[in-house]
Amino acid sequence: MASVDRKRHKMKGHRFILCRFLSEDIMPGAALDPSGRKILLSWPDGRNGCGITNEKGRDKNMNQYYEELKSYMDKGVALMHAMGLFSWDNETLARSRSLEKTAKTIGILSAEYFSNLINDRVKELLNCLKDADDLTEVERAVVDKMTEDVRQLEVIPPEEYQAYSELVSRSTSVWAKAREENDFASFCPVLKEIIAYQKKFAGYMAKDGQKKYDALLDQYEKGFGMEQLDAFFGQLKKEIVPLLKQVSQKNDAIDKSMIYRTYPVDKQKEFCQFLADYIGFDMERGIIAESAHPFTIGFHNDDVRITNHFLPENVESAMFSVIHEGGHGIYEMGVSDEVSQTWVGGGASCGMHESQSRLFENIIGRSRAFWQPIYGKLQEMYPEQLGDVTLDAFYRAINKAQASLIRTEADELTYCLHIMVRYEAEKKIFEEDYPVEQLPQLWNQLYEEYLGVTPSTDTEGILQDIHWSQGSFGYFPSYALGNAFASQIYHQMEQDLDMPALLAQGNFKEIDGYLGRHIHQYGASRPSARLLKDMTGEDFNPTYYTEYLKKKYAEIYDL
Amino acid sequence: MASVDRKRHKMKGHRFILCRFLSEDIMPGAALDPSGRKILLSWPDGRNGCGITNEKGRDKNMNQYYEELKSYMDKGVALMHAMGLFSWDNETLARSRSLEKTAKTIGILSAEYFSNLINDRVKELLNCLKDADDLTEVERAVVDKMTEDVRQLEVIPPEEYQAYSELVSRSTSVWAKAREENDFASFCPVLKEIIAYQKKFAGYMAKDGQKKYDALLDQYEKGFGMEQLDAFFGQLKKEIVPLLKQVSQKNDAIDKSMIYRTYPVDKQKEFCQFLADYIGFDMERGIIAESAHPFTIGFHNDDVRITNHFLPENVESAMFSVIHEGGHGIYEMGVSDEVSQTWVGGGASCGMHESQSRLFENIIGRSRAFWQPIYGKLQEMYPEQLGDVTLDAFYRAINKAQASLIRTEADELTYCLHIMVRYEAEKKIFEEDYPVEQLPQLWNQLYEEYLGVTPSTDTEGILQDIHWSQGSFGYFPSYALGNAFASQIYHQMEQDLDMPALLAQGNFKEIDGYLGRHIHQYGASRPSARLLKDMTGEDFNPTYYTEYLKKKYAEIYDL
Repeated sequence: MASVDRKRHKMKGHRFILCRFLSEDIMPGAALDPSGRKILLSWPDGRNGCGITNEKGRDKNMNQYYEELKSYMDKGVALMHAMGLFSWDNETLARSRSLEKTAKTIGILSAEYFSNLINDRVKELLNCLKDADDLTEVERAVVDKMTEDVRQLEVIPPEEYQAYSELVSRSTSVWAKAREENDFASFCPVLKEIIAYQKKFAGYMAKDGQKKYDALLDQYEKGFGMEQLDAFFGQLKKEIVPLLKQVSQKNDAIDKSMIYRTYPVDKQKEFCQFLADYIGFDMERGIIAESAHPFTIGFHNDDVRITNHFLPENVESAMFSVIHEGGHGIYEMGVSDEVSQTWVGGGASCGMHESQSRLFENIIGRSRAFWQPIYGKLQEMYPEQLGDVTLDAFYRAINKAQASLIRTEADELTYCLHIMVRYEAEKKIFEEDYPVEQLPQLWNQLYEEYLGVTPSTDTEGILQDIHWSQGSFGYFPSYALGNAFASQIYHQMEQDLDMPALLAQGNFKEIDGYLGRHIHQYGASRPSARLLKDMTGEDFNPTYYTEYLKKKYAEIYDL
Repeated sequence: MASVDRKRHKMKGHRFILCRFLSEDIMPGAALDPSGRKILLSWPDGRNGCGITNEKGRDKNMNQYYEELKSYMDKGVALMHAMGLFSWDNETLARSRSLEKTAKTIGILSAEYFSNLINDRVKELLNCLKDADDLTEVERAVVDKMTEDVRQLEVIPPEEYQAYSELVSRSTSVWAKAREENDFASFCPVLKEIIAYQKKFAGYMAKDGQKKYDALLDQYEKGFGMEQLDAFFGQLKKEIVPLLKQVSQKNDAIDKSMIYRTYPVDKQKEFCQFLADYIGFDMERGIIAESAHPFTIGFHNDDVRITNHFLPENVESAMFSVIHEGGHGIYEMGVSDEVSQTWVGGGASCGMHESQSRLFENIIGRSRAFWQPIYGKLQEMYPEQLGDVTLDAFYRAINKAQASLIRTEADELTYCLHIMVRYEAEKKIFEEDYPVEQLPQLWNQLYEEYLGVTPSTDTEGILQDIHWSQGSFGYFPSYALGNAFASQIYHQMEQDLDMPALLAQGNFKEIDGYLGRHIHQYGASRPSARLLKDMTGEDFNPTYYTEYLKKKYAEIYDL
């Protein structure tokens, strides 16, 4: 249920893909007949289970079983929609005073979501439908995804999950305080506990001899375990770390000061609305609001919402946020009606979702071709601030690369190196039982090694991300994969479309339509690896990414 | 569940108090043990029911039964909260394109709400707790209110209710079209069908020989049937209809033209925010947004939301809307923590809720004493529009009374006469089987009789309100009762508080605190009739209302 997961992680301003809803009570769901109207706790013929017949054609029972499963799915999707709306409301509108009482409602809906999914009847139905051969592709995907989600939720004993949930509900504030006070020591014991649970859970989740960290990674991006990631990050280490070194030596070559002039917020809003429209974020099905951290939430393909955040002395931040979130949003809007509001109604995976936002934000949004037709408009809006800045100077400014300490502020070139630090640290935690106390040193050392900078405090070091305090281990790599997917996808777009012409015309109808046909329409009914292969004709290949970066930065920095 | 009901009717911009959620499936709820954590489908001692022991002290079983009931209550309240949030979102933010798919979610939540409330276990628990003598006052109120709601929902056979729901889901658009096209004939057959159902339902709901219209009235304001309403409206007929005639003869005595000058909307917003703060609508627990029709929705006492609507050429509309909705909101905020988020967490009744909004809007908000300390501020904000208007001229303008055709635009003096038309018509429909075809003539004739004006079209006559198209019969009188309750309450406030001084100081802390202690804190845990009696020392007495109107208008119009 990637869409739904996405909602959650996005809502918190952090990544958190595996939905683990607190289960306080498990109610056995009642069975509904296909019309959804009657109680049907045993089958009409007296069997209290199901059997698969081998008749030809669509098996009547299969139909009935799927319809019954669908009623559980519909309820789960509806509850997730409701929880998503609460998240949206909490982030964009609700007063902080309201949160405590509202949390009670969310807790009840979560428990209901859990009990609706985890119960004997759903398991029975999933089991009945396991080998059914007359399901449509989407139905098959629904059955498989629900089966997987049930399994993931079920492998953890409820008492342990309960205790863990309580721990995690405390840990974020411990982390926030520690970050504020630059005090890793106060966060360390909590982090240790979380890691201990995650190790245990990883053990439960691991399939036949799977390594722990692979089991965690599997939650976020299927088919991208340590083997694939070691190769991917190895290539980055080999090619991008040296590239950054070259770029760093030319640090003064690009002047970015004009980006930080004063840009009135009302004009920023106006231009961001223009950008959203320009790239095809459909305002008849979309909403743009403000929140502390920009995020995207998709309730269904006709209700997709993004937020933005405006800084008066930074013209770049909000513009690229709206393009980034707009990319996520266009994905969610592009899901077909057949798939929307099903268990596979969201994006294919975290990484695939990020590929779309990064494709829009960086590959397209930070290209010269994108700005060529609209930079004049930006200049008109800010004659004092940008009247004297050429398109070329602007293009170079928005692409200035510089090693820094904070992931969320990283540029296109250095972003994946930040992820690499986290990947290496997580691998050591789960595969080498690395001592939690020594993680800050490891962190700083990896920053020095990959980015050539060293945090002077843990606040700007290991304490910067919320993820670990939420138990999200194995999540970070999907960010990096998203960037790499995007390059591979864009390379194919350049073969199939006349990208320079489309960007010169601002023809996003064509661009979005193409992505819709190849990726968006399927939602999560096809895995990301398959989408990539079907579209580009080959498996994931990180070379497109490294080549893209090398070419782009060589040109900009005249290397 | 008045709060929740209120949410619904307010959300639709119309009154609709009885929540009848479409039930497509009824799931037997599982029993939860008191901790809410385990499944407990039969009792530990093997009994699968309950028995009341006569031991002294709080009966352990009673405790257990109430705790179990509470888990159903909590779930119902949570689902209602979620549905309320969807309503809020739909009215204030969601795009129209999203509504169809979002309706699916709301339908599922509604069905879940219904099945959570209407099932054998809840009935069993309510039955067990019927005579329990060791419940707290709030617990007792919860049990009684749930029992009543279950009964009201249950007396109607599900198939009939299903068919009725389908009818009603169509009827609003039929009505809207008929209103637009001034075509009562096209609405008439649908209205007939709705009335036929309502008659049947009223028959089901009626308790021992109760008349049909009384059964309908009972849904909205307990203890105010035709006997009480005939007396109430009889008094209005005797005293207010002649008063209006007197006032109408002096129609030109008051100049209201300055109200309709041009008032920039941004300034209106600023002043309305000031007014909300001024009367004590707590922005730490409250939100103000915009919607086509102003409404209030309370999720719990820490999250209360109101909306407003701004007209650039009318300074009065938005100001009195915010005071009106603010009055509703202050009620919802004043509910105690013990009562909030329970089955009796909303206001005592429709009429009592309206009494608070009308008390703020009219009795306080349209008084000289209210404006004395703040009119200068309003003038400062609009020097061109109001600089030349004295407080007295402004006071008279905002109190100008004039018979008109449209209820929602009616002033304080004529409002209840509009309601009287509807009351008489409804009474004839249900007690005299008045022919539906002839209702427009009846309507026009009653308007002439009570207000001295006759609609020239059905659009501005019988087709003006949405209520009947939604099956809300018996609802209108609660509006009028609210006004009358307000006068009786205010009369008491004048005895207990130094109202002139408090209004001169703008001391709403004292005023709101007083109302909180006597009314708001109890939510719906005490019926409106009791609140009124406890506070004022007497039963409902409409004379306070007629005296208030007579005195006020005699002074304004120099009668």
